[in-house]
Amino acid sequence: MDEKCDIAILGGGPGGYVAALRGAQLKKKVLLIEKDLIGGTCMNRGCIPTKYLLHQTQMLRELKDNTNIDGPLENLKLNWTRVQEGKREKVKKLVKGIEFLLKKNGVKIIRGEARLKSERELIVQSKEDTKIFPDKIILATGSESASLPFLQPNGEKIITSKDALELNKLPDRLLIVGAGAIGLEMGTIFHRMGCDVTILELTKNVFPGIDRDMAVRMERLLKAQGLKIHTQMKIEKCDLKNGAVVLEGINLKTLSRFDFEADKILLATGRTPNSAELKGKDARLEFDPHGFLKVDHNLETGIPGIYAIGDLIGGKLLAHKASHEGIIAVENACGKTRAMNYSALPSAVFTEPEFAYVGITETEAKEKGLSVFTGLFTLQANSRALTMSKPDGMVKILSDSEERIVGAQILSPHASEIIMEVTLAIQNGLKLSDLSSVVHIHPTLSEAVMEAALKANGEAIHMLNT
Amino acid sequence: MDEKCDIAILGGGPGGYVAALRGAQLKKKVLLIEKDLIGGTCMNRGCIPTKYLLHQTQMLRELKDNTNIDGPLENLKLNWTRVQEGKREKVKKLVKGIEFLLKKNGVKIIRGEARLKSERELIVQSKEDTKIFPDKIILATGSESASLPFLQPNGEKIITSKDALELNKLPDRLLIVGAGAIGLEMGTIFHRMGCDVTILELTKNVFPGIDRDMAVRMERLLKAQGLKIHTQMKIEKCDLKNGAVVLEGINLKTLSRFDFEADKILLATGRTPNSAELKGKDARLEFDPHGFLKVDHNLETGIPGIYAIGDLIGGKLLAHKASHEGIIAVENACGKTRAMNYSALPSAVFTEPEFAYVGITETEAKEKGLSVFTGLFTLQANSRALTMSKPDGMVKILSDSEERIVGAQILSPHASEIIMEVTLAIQNGLKLSDLSSVVHIHPTLSEAVMEAALKANGEAIHMLNT
Repeated sequence: MDEKCDIAILGGGPGGYVAALRGAQLKKKVLLIEKDLIGGTCMNRGCIPTKYLLHQTQMLRELKDNTNIDGPLENLKLNWTRVQEGKREKVKKLVKGIEFLLKKNGVKIIRGEARLKSERELIVQSKEDTKIFPDKIILATGSESASLPFLQPNGEKIITSKDALELNKLPDRLLIVGAGAIGLEMGTIFHRMGCDVTILELTKNVFPGIDRDMAVRMERLLKAQGLKIHTQMKIEKCDLKNGAVVLEGINLKTLSRFDFEADKILLATGRTPNSAELKGKDARLEFDPHGFLKVDHNLETGIPGIYAIGDLIGGKLLAHKASHEGIIAVENACGKTRAMNYSALPSAVFTEPEFAYVGITETEAKEKGLSVFTGLFTLQANSRALTMSKPDGMVKILSDSEERIVGAQILSPHASEIIMEVTLAIQNGLKLSDLSSVVHIHPTLSEAVMEAALKANGEAIHMLNT
Repeated sequence: MDEKCDIAILGGGPGGYVAALRGAQLKKKVLLIEKDLIGGTCMNRGCIPTKYLLHQTQMLRELKDNTNIDGPLENLKLNWTRVQEGKREKVKKLVKGIEFLLKKNGVKIIRGEARLKSERELIVQSKEDTKIFPDKIILATGSESASLPFLQPNGEKIITSKDALELNKLPDRLLIVGAGAIGLEMGTIFHRMGCDVTILELTKNVFPGIDRDMAVRMERLLKAQGLKIHTQMKIEKCDLKNGAVVLEGINLKTLSRFDFEADKILLATGRTPNSAELKGKDARLEFDPHGFLKVDHNLETGIPGIYAIGDLIGGKLLAHKASHEGIIAVENACGKTRAMNYSALPSAVFTEPEFAYVGITETEAKEKGLSVFTGLFTLQANSRALTMSKPDGMVKILSDSEERIVGAQILSPHASEIIMEVTLAIQNGLKLSDLSSVVHIHPTLSEAVMEAALKANGEAIHMLNT
């Protein structure tokens, strides 16, 4: 069975399916090839199911923390089986919605794994092989959990986030390797469900990449919730002992050896691109040392007409980065010339409070020798945070020497929503005064953004400027 | 006791105290005169205590709505006495914080009610009269609950929102007159606490002033929660019957008569300015028919050097409007020339979901003969809303014929935070494409803002554009 099309897209995740829909809007004949589930990792075993689990468990936690409740709180439990069913139902609904949109937009879905045969020919192997002759190709094959040499996931004692989301039975003791977004969200979910959770991180901070003052505050808040977090822990060995798994290694701070025992180990040490199949296919396809495929500013690979997006090309492995790159790549495939602006790319971890950031950090600015102004405002002086009994977060805004906003870090409930105002400001080259002169609704957490911008100029209203 | 100062501010609400702090930053000697509580209505008996009560009751409601909970939910109750104590504690903490900031900034607080004696002399009556001779004056005396001729609050059967917030005992049946922000928030709080709540509204819509499609959706969602809401209800009479209060009137839709019985009636029919004391003082002080004091673009009254801000001057009676006007008035009093931009003034009602809006509505645009583009996106297609099991809201974005954003209405959890991105866009004259080209974090509710902006151009990704 042969297929001709304008654009073939390999991978139906948030990069690929968005590119397909946009291509269809631009009147192209689009083929979307997916070997597994439409929606990819994000929708089926990443962002979406974790957000459902976080929301469900957060409700219970807030209630149990509330001293104004009369009644037998200790007997309240979330039913993990029903929670898992609820999660699957939400995911299924979203996947069906995307499939409906693809169909209505005239995008044909081909199920199977595509291999690049030549620069204008793809082969999808299934019962009957399909040859596809596209005019343009978008590679959006995503990534999968990375592993360590002595710590290979086996779906039983050593698991990935994908396995963790499908667990039918909760482990008593869970050991998580890595305190990035995935490790912290998974730790939060399973801790709230009643598991004894320990997180081990190799670097100095939780959520590596953010400023230390924010990371320290975040670690303190998570620990206060009952999560056990240890940083600077270098793991060297994994053993089985009486049915339990044991991790051994060295504490880089104290130089003493450690060992931790648990029922399961969850690997959250990053992700690796699904690029093996492409390697060696064509010398014009180049890869970085981690296996990420190289593209130019317009997201085109070394082969003209073949674009790549999302986790496959590296940078921040975020669904919304992939979606946005999908739109840009497909528009370029349709003759436009668009580039991606990574200076206003926000990201978040959905713990409680959430942490979101965008642009450069103070640490990065220092490393690059850039002079930045910083405005830091703590939620203790934000009235909405106080009414929510959540006064522990903070907001940091960074500007360059011309007062142009260049970065923000927000530790606050709903930080993932609040950061968008600053993201829009960065994207449009706005200044501190543009942010601080906007009327913010009272009482909202967003008022802390305005105050942080004022603080950078020594003009905060709700805290001292000295 | 005589006092000289650069600026005297009458009223220590969110308009007055913010003006005082900003004046102090600008090195002026500032006197703040308050007859009651620093923080005013907003902090002591408005925005802040209601937000605490909304947050507390929302937690219980979410849990009770959650079918994944195992355990005796029916026995769970919020302890109203402890909730009230918690509320008072939060408010007290905020008021103390503001008093601390005022003191540290060198603002002197005078307790008492000030009267304008001449354009440069104030008298504050207390045990010992104080004469104040300020160079400039800012009037920030706020507003109080309005009443109807046959419905006068008495603190017992007929109460205001101020009384409602201090109730030690919950009424079994509560009748609320007015479905504006105050009526809807109060109704939500007392309904969640287990009271039988009925809200009567004179106009066609809940939250008068917003577009009908949003109002209809909002009314449906609130009714589904168990609130009884009746619109187009003209109240004509109030009686006492066997210890209960009875409201009688005519249903303007059916022209049939109605009567409702309750234990208490809460008046939420708007607010009236505290301007009586100023009337007849000086012919240069002018008032509109509702008693609001008139000011020019720079917030100066007819008397040079006397400014007025907040609820006293009318417009939208919002704490954040008052605060912002406070900053502008005090900067003008210090020699700057700043005007207030009301085209980017957002407001919100903190129901669940929240409703927030900014700029012009479709209805207003039609009335003014302006041609606008509309992008409407429903949260059913937003994955974060789905993970929260709250898919019923929607986002509407309006642009003018040049695609400049001129308004937005958001019915969504956290709408009061999400609206800030659009507010910043309006304030800076940004276009639909400026909003839709910004990368939004996935999964967030804010993605619906991006999709609504795309929809206005027929380019939405996650819904059909036909």
